[in-house]
Amino acid sequence: MKLYDLELSGNCYKVRLFCALNQIPLEICPVDYLAGEHKSTAYLALNPLGEIPLLADDGFLIRDSQAILIYLAQKYQLIQWWPQDPKHQGLVSQWLSFAANDIARGPNDARLHDLFGIELDVASARHKARSCAKILDEHLHMHHWLVGDTPTLADIACYPYMALMHQGGVRGEAYPHLTRWMNEMKHLDGFITMPGIE
Amino acid sequence: MKLYDLELSGNCYKVRLFCALNQIPLEICPVDYLAGEHKSTAYLALNPLGEIPLLADDGFLIRDSQAILIYLAQKYQLIQWWPQDPKHQGLVSQWLSFAANDIARGPNDARLHDLFGIELDVASARHKARSCAKILDEHLHMHHWLVGDTPTLADIACYPYMALMHQGGVRGEAYPHLTRWMNEMKHLDGFITMPGIE
Repeated sequence: MKLYDLELSGNCYKVRLFCALNQIPLEICPVDYLAGEHKSTAYLALNPLGEIPLLADDGFLIRDSQAILIYLAQKYQLIQWWPQDPKHQGLVSQWLSFAANDIARGPNDARLHDLFGIELDVASARHKARSCAKILDEHLHMHHWLVGDTPTLADIACYPYMALMHQGGVRGEAYPHLTRWMNEMKHLDGFITMPGIE
Repeated sequence: MKLYDLELSGNCYKVRLFCALNQIPLEICPVDYLAGEHKSTAYLALNPLGEIPLLADDGFLIRDSQAILIYLAQKYQLIQWWPQDPKHQGLVSQWLSFAANDIARGPNDARLHDLFGIELDVASARHKARSCAKILDEHLHMHHWLVGDTPTLADIACYPYMALMHQGGVRGEAYPHLTRWMNEMKHLDGFITMPGIE
């Protein structure tokens, strides 16, 4: 299984982290983001959205980090990560959308501005980042993991850009429950890190 | 089952449409958006994100239109809408993220600006709307439905804001395959409409 990957992308890291935690072998295929390889004709033929990550599994192509997580969990029947009962699966999905939307427009955008010089409304992105941190902090005050008693795809999808939030100018220290949860993520068996997450 | 609903919301319409197509009874509980009821203390206690839709199923609360669709499909085992094999489930998820992210920041944002006077970068939103339309048009040139041979949650999630795109200043006529698909959605047994979709 081949992952079209960018080392500095939190979205790619979601997939690498999930595979590391579950001993799923992954062939890493680096995409030269700075050279614009993700917008090349060859890459757009694989992913018309021109985005990374992209997973290629014996000819089957799937894009979007959240979708790749679901695909892998369903393929390997890792039902502790992707529960099959409707309520837990619905709740995990709720946080996957939170990652795809709120976190992408908050801490992820603020980091894109600060680290990669992408032009966007960084004040708004930082405001949204603080809002994401507050929502998660209050939820994690009442819950050990985002859904249920063990980590799920919800935790994998939300973790990277919250742990990288400081690279977008927002510190996590003010959110004690979020901080506790981020520390526990680091203690999962098989955890791997990425640049920016110490 | 109670849906906290706003008639003019395409996200709420996703849930109403899916329930109508599958004869799932739904008690509609209108939320007074203009009066800011979604930001009231009472509503925030139900959904800390202050967003609509929200589904309440006998005390179980779930927010986010994509997550609600997954919950309902999994609960009623509507596996034609939410396939259980990893590849099809992954591909449907890929389009759910497209709805939660790309479509939300494109046609949805442009409509929020034009119809509700929300301040945002409308030129960027219209540009993203055209990009969404192009991606979908090219995909639907090669595929009858977004995933597989029958409509799935992917179609339900992507349809509303594409059908409402004209309310954000972008016409759909230039995209013949997208137009064909939107017409076929309207011919599904049990289809219901919403204001703005003729």
